[in-house]
Amino acid sequence: MTSHWFSTPTNARAAIAERVNAVRTGTPLVHCLTNTVVQNVTANVLLAAGAAPAMVDHPQEASEFAQVASGVLINVGTMSRQQVEAMPAAAAAARDAGVPWVLDPVAVGGLSVRTKLAAELLELKPQAIRGNASEVQALAGTGAGGRGVDATDSVDSARSAALSLAERTGAVVAVSGERDLFVWTEGGSAYSVYLTSGTPMLTRVIGTGCSLGALVAAYLGALPKDALAHERAAAVLAAHAHVGAAGEEAAKSAKFPGSYAVAWMDALDSLSAEQIAQTVSVEAAEDAQ
Amino acid sequence: MTSHWFSTPTNARAAIAERVNAVRTGTPLVHCLTNTVVQNVTANVLLAAGAAPAMVDHPQEASEFAQVASGVLINVGTMSRQQVEAMPAAAAAARDAGVPWVLDPVAVGGLSVRTKLAAELLELKPQAIRGNASEVQALAGTGAGGRGVDATDSVDSARSAALSLAERTGAVVAVSGERDLFVWTEGGSAYSVYLTSGTPMLTRVIGTGCSLGALVAAYLGALPKDALAHERAAAVLAAHAHVGAAGEEAAKSAKFPGSYAVAWMDALDSLSAEQIAQTVSVEAAEDAQ
Amino acid sequence: MTSHWFSTPTNARAAIAERVNAVRTGTPLVHCLTNTVVQNVTANVLLAAGAAPAMVDHPQEASEFAQVASGVLINVGTMSRQQVEAMPAAAAAARDAGVPWVLDPVAVGGLSVRTKLAAELLELKPQAIRGNASEVQALAGTGAGGRGVDATDSVDSARSAALSLAERTGAVVAVSGERDLFVWTEGGSAYSVYLTSGTPMLTRVIGTGCSLGALVAAYLGALPKDALAHERAAAVLAAHAHVGAAGEEAAKSAKFPGSYAVAWMDALDSLSAEQIAQTVSVEAAEDAQ
Repeated sequence: MTSHWFSTPTNARAAIAERVNAVRTGTPLVHCLTNTVVQNVTANVLLAAGAAPAMVDHPQEASEFAQVASGVLINVGTMSRQQVEAMPAAAAAARDAGVPWVLDPVAVGGLSVRTKLAAELLELKPQAIRGNASEVQALAGTGAGGRGVDATDSVDSARSAALSLAERTGAVVAVSGERDLFVWTEGGSAYSVYLTSGTPMLTRVIGTGCSLGALVAAYLGALPKDALAHERAAAVLAAHAHVGAAGEEAAKSAKFPGSYAVAWMDALDSLSAEQIAQTVSVEAAEDAQ
Repeated sequence: MTSHWFSTPTNARAAIAERVNAVRTGTPLVHCLTNTVVQNVTANVLLAAGAAPAMVDHPQEASEFAQVASGVLINVGTMSRQQVEAMPAAAAAARDAGVPWVLDPVAVGGLSVRTKLAAELLELKPQAIRGNASEVQALAGTGAGGRGVDATDSVDSARSAALSLAERTGAVVAVSGERDLFVWTEGGSAYSVYLTSGTPMLTRVIGTGCSLGALVAAYLGALPKDALAHERAAAVLAAHAHVGAAGEEAAKSAKFPGSYAVAWMDALDSLSAEQIAQTVSVEAAEDAQ
Repeated sequence: MTSHWFSTPTNARAAIAERVNAVRTGTPLVHCLTNTVVQNVTANVLLAAGAAPAMVDHPQEASEFAQVASGVLINVGTMSRQQVEAMPAAAAAARDAGVPWVLDPVAVGGLSVRTKLAAELLELKPQAIRGNASEVQALAGTGAGGRGVDATDSVDSARSAALSLAERTGAVVAVSGERDLFVWTEGGSAYSVYLTSGTPMLTRVIGTGCSLGALVAAYLGALPKDALAHERAAAVLAAHAHVGAAGEEAAKSAKFPGSYAVAWMDALDSLSAEQIAQTVSVEAAEDAQ
């Protein structure tokens, strides 16, 4: 199976660059039902990456809009009562219309309403799930959740939980951490791939992780509708590579969080697809070759 | 009618500079019922322009506050159920108190709840309406709306729709595009004026258009209460000139969206009224002289 | 009583530096129920100062989360119906769990729903109250409130109101202004201390005051649970010193609000505890020695 996009560094870099360019030329329209803390940075990240943002939370409109978007993000970070209604409605509408949607289970496990909501959303077939190790474990029912958006477990601790979620839902599961882990199933086999990118400075700015979730929806939205699981996995990983490479680029010039946030936003736009691909490294897990 | 403020470049520049200074010296208090994506940038734009922002969404308080504000913005971009109640209440309270209010019909046409809401708001006598061509056409009932905040039609395609809205409501109607179009009626005549300003970089940062709507409310709020339609039109156009001139200034030093957003905010404050007026150009439409 | 931390400049600076370092090493988790305009900047300020932000507004989850946070901020700036429910629930849960919580009574006095809400919240034993002079007077029932977040009265005009609130609630009351006033009671005595720090540029950026409220919660959250009133007062003052010193540092390099906001965020992180302490000056009021 050496023909996989993740089988060699050269293949992986080609796959990443192709996906970055697909977003920049396709301008996917991303409908975000996300937390109010990060809406602005999320919209700016989508614009900087070449996508188009839109945020519609009213339960009636959310399902109308999900059907016409290229991709949908559902992030439960500050979900209101209105969003508790709107999120399943939008997810179901997206699923029925063949629009890919992404679940970001922020702080699931530790808080009751969102934990129940996330379980309900899982049944609506997200094409990708993005969270830290604590959140992925809690979502799979195998952990207690972290404290808010902090990652308190390593990505490997969430590998079996990620696999369980991938098998149950068909989603590509991305676990964010010092290196990122991507797990999916296809044709009866399971795959695990690691991405090394980014810098700890990314954790000093609010919304880098949450806007990554929106970028995953943009990257899925730029794929053909009949994309296979490994193609979706390449898109999900490329979104992470884009954020991580821009994070590394920004750290070259900015040492403190205010100017770092600005430099990171610039780098999301200024880096070429090839620069992004060259900055990161991809490694398949032993059992995935 | 060569005495109109828009009849010569010199007159137009004098009118713009006067309005910029009126906001800077008058510190109008602008009550924004706006979308949650852009609240922060909107508040900062108002501060940078010399106005004072306040955002009050609770239905009961929104009508209390609209009466004491200098101007009110109603932007339906992410309207919640609570805002669906609060917006007409605030608009009615503003109208009854003689406080100018501005309607920004974000994504009207494509989504059901806001389209109905905007029709209801139109009856409450906005002093200005600001949108892109798709939104203005949808609001007038002559188009299907765009996709979110994107402008998918040219401003001229919305000229008859803008005129129809101006006649029905008495509002100054501003259509944002590559150049901006302003339409109003006064004394049985209709007027159309174009403003050329800005740069495409302004579309790479979220909230430049939405905060312009708030700035329009600030500019109207700095007028005497008995201002005539052509005076209101000058104020509305000056708000656009302020945003556009700052956009051009920022593009001189910043090439990517993160640093561009910072430079634009700086330029809103740093440019003198005369610099703003000198940067832009105003042209009356043929039939408006 | 020359042994008080505020009795000499040297003592005051040592107390400030100690508190700054306690936040940076303790990473207190701050639960913010705050206004939607400033959520993003508030979260970034907390991160820059070394704390961890989380924002949970759903009434059911807000009380769950308040119990496990290090500190809680309740800022009524744009309170929704949902927050009107969630805020007292979170405050009561915090009080019962011994978690310090801070009340920021934005625009209380002028608007009906928040004025009633703030009165209800006062009964739930905030450990600190932070507002401008108008708000503190309105909260104490001795003034009419300002216009939104503007300070329209001097801090000294609010000194008796602050004392009244301190006596009724046990809170440290901080009145923000050209210099800041801190009032508290302990062992039957009342204390008043002034802090001089900051620059008018801080008022040109939205959210500097509101995020200071969150920082006060972080500073209280980094204290031992059995801290005495004068220790809490030192923490509350140190949070103000941190914001003010960073504001002065930023003003050295940035003259306009966009770049100033970035420089201020950088300075919150880059200044050492000693630099912060050296930048500001503390003075006890005559009657407090």
